[in-house]
Amino acid sequence: MDSLKKGWFSELNELWPGMSLSLQVEEVLHKEKSSYQDIMVLQTKSHGKALILDGIIQCTESDEFAYQEMISFLPLCCHPSPKRVLIVGGGDGGVAREVAKHPDVERIDQVEIDAQVIEVSKKFLPSMAVGFSHPKLSLHVEDGFKFMQQHEHEFDVVITDSSDPVGPAVSLFQESYFSLMRRALRPGGIVCSQGGTVWANSEHVAQTLSHCQATFPAAAYAYAAVPTYPTGQIGFVLGSLDENTKFRDPVRKFSDDELESMHLRYYNSDIHQAAFTMPRFAQKILSSTSNPSDRNNNPGDSS
Amino acid sequence: MDSLKKGWFSELNELWPGMSLSLQVEEVLHKEKSSYQDIMVLQTKSHGKALILDGIIQCTESDEFAYQEMISFLPLCCHPSPKRVLIVGGGDGGVAREVAKHPDVERIDQVEIDAQVIEVSKKFLPSMAVGFSHPKLSLHVEDGFKFMQQHEHEFDVVITDSSDPVGPAVSLFQESYFSLMRRALRPGGIVCSQGGTVWANSEHVAQTLSHCQATFPAAAYAYAAVPTYPTGQIGFVLGSLDENTKFRDPVRKFSDDELESMHLRYYNSDIHQAAFTMPRFAQKILSSTSNPSDRNNNPGDSS
Repeated sequence: MDSLKKGWFSELNELWPGMSLSLQVEEVLHKEKSSYQDIMVLQTKSHGKALILDGIIQCTESDEFAYQEMISFLPLCCHPSPKRVLIVGGGDGGVAREVAKHPDVERIDQVEIDAQVIEVSKKFLPSMAVGFSHPKLSLHVEDGFKFMQQHEHEFDVVITDSSDPVGPAVSLFQESYFSLMRRALRPGGIVCSQGGTVWANSEHVAQTLSHCQATFPAAAYAYAAVPTYPTGQIGFVLGSLDENTKFRDPVRKFSDDELESMHLRYYNSDIHQAAFTMPRFAQKILSSTSNPSDRNNNPGDSS
Repeated sequence: MDSLKKGWFSELNELWPGMSLSLQVEEVLHKEKSSYQDIMVLQTKSHGKALILDGIIQCTESDEFAYQEMISFLPLCCHPSPKRVLIVGGGDGGVAREVAKHPDVERIDQVEIDAQVIEVSKKFLPSMAVGFSHPKLSLHVEDGFKFMQQHEHEFDVVITDSSDPVGPAVSLFQESYFSLMRRALRPGGIVCSQGGTVWANSEHVAQTLSHCQATFPAAAYAYAAVPTYPTGQIGFVLGSLDENTKFRDPVRKFSDDELESMHLRYYNSDIHQAAFTMPRFAQKILSSTSNPSDRNNNPGDSS
């Protein structure tokens, strides 16, 4: 399969071998090679515009809300008072758009390494890039590692909206990165990272969670439905400096009226709870992080 | 895109326009045209064997357990004593395999119209077709409509494991079909039908649910993750003759030991609850079944 042929874009990657989602393309709106990656924006037939980095779908206008809301509100609603938030990555602006909605958030710092992703998003994906123009936001175009090394004990919540663990983003899934996030947190702080899906990368999910568990006294994995991500699901790895954090039970519960006024289309407190509820095979994979010999428990194995 | 080219099978259908899931194929194990449909069995590279009917993926060995367990145990665990079960469709045998596990079930009748699907499944998909050899099962190769017309007030649970609402299966999503199921039920009986996904066919889901609501005093919609179905999700429409049925709260809760001995890999009581928990946009679509003017609320619409 070629990635762009006969009016279809196909997503192929070693992380989800043997399967490929294709989107019908009306127009290639933009294509460039930045210092960090290949950037492409497609006008799809049925999913609005799509941002593609290094051949992987980052978001489509049709379902980005599910991902952006969940990676933002899961950690924010587990923190009793999330005043200062750091976003690492998130170059399309969608996570900043969501974080800025939380009434307790006073200041958002965002560190994105690739200025071109920001520029392209501003031009082609204004419904996401609107996040960049929020008065709460300070945007830093630099390396997230370096930024965090210079900012100790400053943030209540650190959200890592990264691409998948191939190429430049690999380091964002390692234990040293979780340590760096820990150091950047104020007491009681919470982190939330894109964490892959147990349906395609169960070993990777278990490994990322185990790094988080090794670094934080409380840690958990949650997931949401995002149809244009591989297998239609995406996961989140959360860690808290407060050992009493019960991730399943949000400390902040917004009313339906509040959710409506924030234009939330996926998140509410019930969905928050459900996101931490795992199918049995996934429970086993994730509990095996304390017993690595059980880890090869892919969904396709017969029991 | 062609459906089978260069070692990949691509699933294309008007029900999910502009998107297509492809599976890498090692071998086409079987291909025939039965009296009812095109039947194909593929040996895929990463998802085990796949059964394809009229170009649509019905199941793969990698994730069929999620669908088969949920369409079976959601209704079974909402019924206080599901002794007699009717399965309509389900020609691969996977639903019979799951239903037979429930200790209360004494007799299963299954009506599948296409004998060739059964034969092909027995030959190529023995891990599913094992359901056909269970002593609780009586298999009838005939039309489900006709069978139900001849069986009034006989069943505690009716499960419809159909293909999607294109071609021959369209009638299984209409109000007349829900009336027929209602007539086949004993007092307190429950039905569960494959119900599509709000991410691709929100109008269709809302319509099917409204048919169910018009026919049964209690009705609900649930969903599960099944990566090889379009959008990675599949839904279920449930109806009960008992107006007090609370679908979210199973009356039968199996212990972990019981679930383990039944080899369940997706279902447990928590997942049962979570399956009825909808993202906000889906809540709106489904609540609009009582107000059809709100129904055009697709996930891609901005709010």
